[in-house]
Amino acid sequence: MQNSRSKPCSCPSLKLREVASMYLTVVAAFLVILVVALQGSVPRQSDFPYKVPLDPQGLLELSWNVSYPEQAVHFQLLIRELQFGLLFGMSDRGEFENADLAVLWSDGHNSYFGDAWSDAKGQLHMDSQQDYQLLGARRAPEGLYLLFRRAFSTCDPKDYLIEDGTVHLIYGILEKPVHSLQAINISALHGGLQRVQLLKPNISIPELPQDMKTMEITAPDVVIPSQETTYWCYMAELPEGFPKHHIIMYEPVVTAGNEALVHHMEVFQCAAEFDSFPHYNGPCDSKMKPERLNYCRHVLAAWAMGAQAFYYPEEAGLAFGGPGSSRYLRLEIHYHNPLVFKGRRDSSGIRLYYTATLRPHDAGIMELGLVYTPVMAIPPGEDSFILTGYCTDKCTQLALPAAGIRIFASQLHTHLAGRKVVTVLSRDGRERQVVNADKHYSPHFQEIRMLKEVVAVFPGDELITTCTYNTEDRSRATVGGFGILEEMCVNYVHYYPQTQLELCKSAVDPGYLHRYFNLVNRFNDEEICMCPQVSVPQQFYSIPWNTFNRDVLRSLYGFAPISMHCNKSSAVRFPGEWEKQPLPRITGRLREPGPRCPPAPGPQPAAPVPLQLGQLR
Amino acid sequence: MQNSRSKPCSCPSLKLREVASMYLTVVAAFLVILVVALQGSVPRQSDFPYKVPLDPQGLLELSWNVSYPEQAVHFQLLIRELQFGLLFGMSDRGEFENADLAVLWSDGHNSYFGDAWSDAKGQLHMDSQQDYQLLGARRAPEGLYLLFRRAFSTCDPKDYLIEDGTVHLIYGILEKPVHSLQAINISALHGGLQRVQLLKPNISIPELPQDMKTMEITAPDVVIPSQETTYWCYMAELPEGFPKHHIIMYEPVVTAGNEALVHHMEVFQCAAEFDSFPHYNGPCDSKMKPERLNYCRHVLAAWAMGAQAFYYPEEAGLAFGGPGSSRYLRLEIHYHNPLVFKGRRDSSGIRLYYTATLRPHDAGIMELGLVYTPVMAIPPGEDSFILTGYCTDKCTQLALPAAGIRIFASQLHTHLAGRKVVTVLSRDGRERQVVNADKHYSPHFQEIRMLKEVVAVFPGDELITTCTYNTEDRSRATVGGFGILEEMCVNYVHYYPQTQLELCKSAVDPGYLHRYFNLVNRFNDEEICMCPQVSVPQQFYSIPWNTFNRDVLRSLYGFAPISMHCNKSSAVRFPGEWEKQPLPRITGRLREPGPRCPPAPGPQPAAPVPLQLGQLR
Repeated sequence: MQNSRSKPCSCPSLKLREVASMYLTVVAAFLVILVVALQGSVPRQSDFPYKVPLDPQGLLELSWNVSYPEQAVHFQLLIRELQFGLLFGMSDRGEFENADLAVLWSDGHNSYFGDAWSDAKGQLHMDSQQDYQLLGARRAPEGLYLLFRRAFSTCDPKDYLIEDGTVHLIYGILEKPVHSLQAINISALHGGLQRVQLLKPNISIPELPQDMKTMEITAPDVVIPSQETTYWCYMAELPEGFPKHHIIMYEPVVTAGNEALVHHMEVFQCAAEFDSFPHYNGPCDSKMKPERLNYCRHVLAAWAMGAQAFYYPEEAGLAFGGPGSSRYLRLEIHYHNPLVFKGRRDSSGIRLYYTATLRPHDAGIMELGLVYTPVMAIPPGEDSFILTGYCTDKCTQLALPAAGIRIFASQLHTHLAGRKVVTVLSRDGRERQVVNADKHYSPHFQEIRMLKEVVAVFPGDELITTCTYNTEDRSRATVGGFGILEEMCVNYVHYYPQTQLELCKSAVDPGYLHRYFNLVNRFNDEEICMCPQVSVPQQFYSIPWNTFNRDVLRSLYGFAPISMHCNKSSAVRFPGEWEKQPLPRITGRLREPGPRCPPAPGPQPAAPVPLQLGQLR
Repeated sequence: MQNSRSKPCSCPSLKLREVASMYLTVVAAFLVILVVALQGSVPRQSDFPYKVPLDPQGLLELSWNVSYPEQAVHFQLLIRELQFGLLFGMSDRGEFENADLAVLWSDGHNSYFGDAWSDAKGQLHMDSQQDYQLLGARRAPEGLYLLFRRAFSTCDPKDYLIEDGTVHLIYGILEKPVHSLQAINISALHGGLQRVQLLKPNISIPELPQDMKTMEITAPDVVIPSQETTYWCYMAELPEGFPKHHIIMYEPVVTAGNEALVHHMEVFQCAAEFDSFPHYNGPCDSKMKPERLNYCRHVLAAWAMGAQAFYYPEEAGLAFGGPGSSRYLRLEIHYHNPLVFKGRRDSSGIRLYYTATLRPHDAGIMELGLVYTPVMAIPPGEDSFILTGYCTDKCTQLALPAAGIRIFASQLHTHLAGRKVVTVLSRDGRERQVVNADKHYSPHFQEIRMLKEVVAVFPGDELITTCTYNTEDRSRATVGGFGILEEMCVNYVHYYPQTQLELCKSAVDPGYLHRYFNLVNRFNDEEICMCPQVSVPQQFYSIPWNTFNRDVLRSLYGFAPISMHCNKSSAVRFPGEWEKQPLPRITGRLREPGPRCPPAPGPQPAAPVPLQLGQLR
C-alpha cells in the first residue's frame, strides 16, 4: 500500500467545491500513510538516555530524550503487562484533574491512541489539537513499546506547557475495555504520579583524568522498612590521613530490583569541629540516632530518581579530605515504599569519582534566599503567597572576586508549603538571567540540577530568590524556621572558584515588622495583645487574618528595608553595615518567554491580497 | 478564468512530497479565485445601518453592521479622495502603536490589501493570520468603496479584541507610493482617531403610538467657534402649561455638512425649584453664562457621534412637562473642530418624540458608583488604579419594589483620568450579570447606551461599579469631587418603573481613612503633618507616595467599611443606618468570556489514531 502511486495532480485552477473535496482526499491519504508508518517503525533503545519507572512495581517504564532544536520530547513507554490500555500525561502538581493526557484504549477488539485532556471534574475529552503524536508501537517479549512525541509548547490552551524544572507525570491503567475515551472513569483507575526533570540540560561531558579513582558510599545491605516513607541514615568515613582530593563526578548505585523504591540519596560531610562521629546505621528519625549526626549537613553529593551522573565542570572539583575537613560522611536514602513491600534488601548509594590531581578551582556551595527566621511568615489560607530573599549588590561587591564566579548547578529547597522557586540575576537594577526556576517545585523532589548555561556573577550583581507557598490547608500562620511545619526559601548554588561567601540571604527588618504588628493592633477593632515581650511567632499566630492584614503584610515585605546576612560562615558576617538595607530596585523585568506556537493558519494565507484597481492615482 | 475547469483529482494514496506540492497548488488556486471574486462583488448601501465620518473633513466615511450569529463586523469604508492608500484599524486608546490595522497601499503601479499590526515603536508588520478579510472593492463617482469583514475575536495575539463599549478607530492616509507594507512610516502619516460603539445592540424597535408628536431642541443657527473644542449652551423652554408627556424616542438632528464637527449633544431639564431660568445662547464656559444654568443637570436625552435614535422600551417613557417639572431645558453641544474651520453655521440638536398617551411606567434614572467626596482618591503616577462604588443589598432591599426594576440603558461617567468603567449585578454574594462594561472607556465619549439585554434588579441585589484610572501624567493625588481635575465614578442607569431611589452610591468610611493617614504618618520615617484640622485633599497631597503607602491605600479601599448614600434625592437619605456598612462580600466572580477562536488545526486531525495491535488482551 505504501508503494502504490498515482500521478501527481496538477490543477492550475479549480472551482471551490473541487478544492474542498481534494483537501479531504489529502487528509484521508495522510491518515493511511500514518497507520502504515506505525507498523514499520522500531524504537531504538539507545535513543532514550533518561529513564524512570512510573509505578512502584515498575510495570510502566518511561524513557525519553529531549530535542532542543525541535523543542520537543520523544517518549518511549514500556508497558509490561498491558490490559485494556493506559493514560499517561502531565499536570500542574500530579493531579488527575486538569491534566494533559495521551491515552491508549481498547474496546476489546480495536485499539486507539489519542491526545486528551481532563476537566476540573476529571472527565476526559478529546483534544481538538492532537499534540501527543504517536510515532510507533511495537510488541516485544518484555511488553508493548509506545513511541510518541510532544512539543514543549503546543499553544493548545488545554495542553500542559513543558518547562524547565519539575514535571509531574501521571499514569493510569485501564483494567476493563472501554468503548470511547469519554467513557473512561478517572476516579476508578489504578494510577499514580512520578516527578521528573523532563528537560534535562544538554551538557557535554568533560574529559576525565587518568588517575581517577572511585569510592562507593552505599548502604550495608539494609532491609528496607515495610512502611511508605523511610529516611535511612548510614555513617561512613574516609581513611585516616586521606589527603585533599577533588570529587569530579558522582553517580547513583541502585540495587537491581529496587529502582522504583530508591527515591533520592544524599552524601553529607560532617562538621570539622568534631574529631569523631559515632557509627550509625538506621532510620534518620529514630530515637537511637546519635544527636551529633545533626552536624553532618554539608552536601557532597545528591541524587534523585531520574537524575543521571553529575559531572563537575572541567575547571573545578569539590574538595574533600585533607586537613580542616571531617573524615566522616553521612549517607541518607529516602525509600519510598507505598506498596509496603517486606524484606527487600538494599545496598544502594552513591559512587564518587575523585582525583588527587587537583583541578584549577575548588567548587563551592553558597546559600541564597531567606534567613531562617520567624520574621518572614505566610498567612494561613493563601493559595500562592510569595516571599523573596535577596543577595544584594553591596554583599557581592564585597565578597566576590573581580573576575566573578560561575554558577553551574543549583538545588532548590523549601519545606512542605513550597510550590515554586525562582532565582534571578539582576545587574544595574535590571533582571538579566534566570539562574534556576521551577514553577512546579515539589518539596518531595529536591535534586541538584546542572544549569543549562553556566551563570557568571560579578561584584555588584544581585541574586533574587522568590518562593511561592500554598497554605490553604493551614489554620495559623507559617513562620520561617527549621521545623518541618515552618518554612525555608533557599537556593544552594554550586559554583567556582570557591569564595569565602557561604551565605547571602536576607529577612525583613525586625523594626518594620514591629510597626506592622502595632498597625494591625490599631487598625483592627479587636483587642489583640501585641505586647513586645511576646515572641514573633506568637504575634503572627494571634493576627486576625482579614484581607487588610494579609495585604499589608504583603506590602510590608515588598517595601520594608532588610537585614542582610552576607556571611563567611553561618555565624560570621563580612564587615560592614548590614541592617536596614534598602530593597534592591528592579526597573527592568525579564519577559516571560511567550509560548512558541506553530504558525496558526488563518482564514487567508499571510500574504497581501493584490487588487486589480489599476493605479490609484 | 473563473470558468476554466479541470477534472476532480482523486488521489487514493500519495507520497508525502506529492501531497505537499499539491497543497501549494491548492493555495495558489484559492488566491486566483479570491481576486476574481473581488472584481464581481458590489457593496449594498442598505446593509450598513451605522455610519461615522473618520476625519474632520469627512473624506473617509465608515459604515458598518454587526452580525451576532457570525460574531463579526462588516465594514464599508468610503474613501473620497484616494491617494496611495490608507490605514484603518483599532487600538486600545486610539494610539498608532500596538494597533491592529487593515492596510491598502499602492507602489504606484499595483495595489495591495493586507492585515497588519504595528509594534510598540509604530513599525508595521504583516499579520501571520489575515483577519481583516477583504470582501470587495469598487470604484464609484464619490470614491472607492472597500468592503471587509472582521470577526470580533481572532485569537491572533497581535489582533484587537472587539468588545462591547467604546472602540478607538484610527486612520492614516498614504500620500506617497510605498513599495512594501514595512516601508510605511506611521509617524509621518496624516491620520487621526474616531471613537465609536462598534457593537451596537441588536434591539427590535418598539411600536410607536399614533398620537406621537415631535419637538426639536436645536441650536439657533449658531456660528461654530474657530477653536478645537467648544461646549455650546442654549436654553429652550416648553410651552406654558405643557402637561405631562412621555418621551418615547429621540434622535439627532445634525446640520448637513457638519457631521464631522458635532461630537455629542445633550438635553438637560432644569431644577423645578426655580420658577424661571434666563435665556442664554453661547459657550458653556463663558463668563457671560448665568450661574443659574448650573441647575439644569437632569438628563432628558444624550447623543454622541455614531449613535442612532434612542427608543424607550414599550412599557415606559421618560416623563416631562406637567406640575413639579421645570419648563426650562438646556441644550449642550460639543463641537469638535480640530481643523479650526471658520464661520461654519450650525442648527444641530435633538428631536424628541413624545406622546400624551402615557405608557404604563415612567422611566427613571439612578446614579450608581461613588459619592463625590475627596475620601476616594487616586495616588499620582498610577497606570491603572481601581476605585469601586457599591449599591448594597440593604439599600435595594429598602428602596426597590418586590417586582424589581428593569435597567435598559446606561451612561458611564468619569472625569479625565477614567479609563474603564464596569457595573456588575451581584445576588447572594455571587456576580450574576454585567450591567454595562467599557474597557476602552473615554471621558471624551459619553453616550447613553441601550443594553444588549435588559437587566432585572430585585430587592437585596447589589450593584457594584468599578472605575479604572490612569494618573501617570499627574504629580499629586487625584481626589474625588466635581472639578475637572478631580474624579468621579458614576453609572447613570435608565430603568423602569421609576422609584424614589435616585442615588445608590458609597465612599470609604472617613474614620478608617483617618486611621490610614495616621498609619502613613507613623510608618514612614519622614515627618508629615497629618493634623486633623487639615482637609482630606491636603492630607492626600502631602503623602509621600512610596509603594507601601500606595499598596495600603488600595488595601484600605478593599477592606474598610463604607458610608452608603441610599438617597431619595441628592440630599435626602432613606431612613436607616448607613454609616460603617460592611463591604459586600463576593464569593463567586463572573468569568471573563475567553476569546472564541476558530478551532486551530493541529499537527494531526482531532480524531483517535486507530492502531493495528490486535486485541490488547
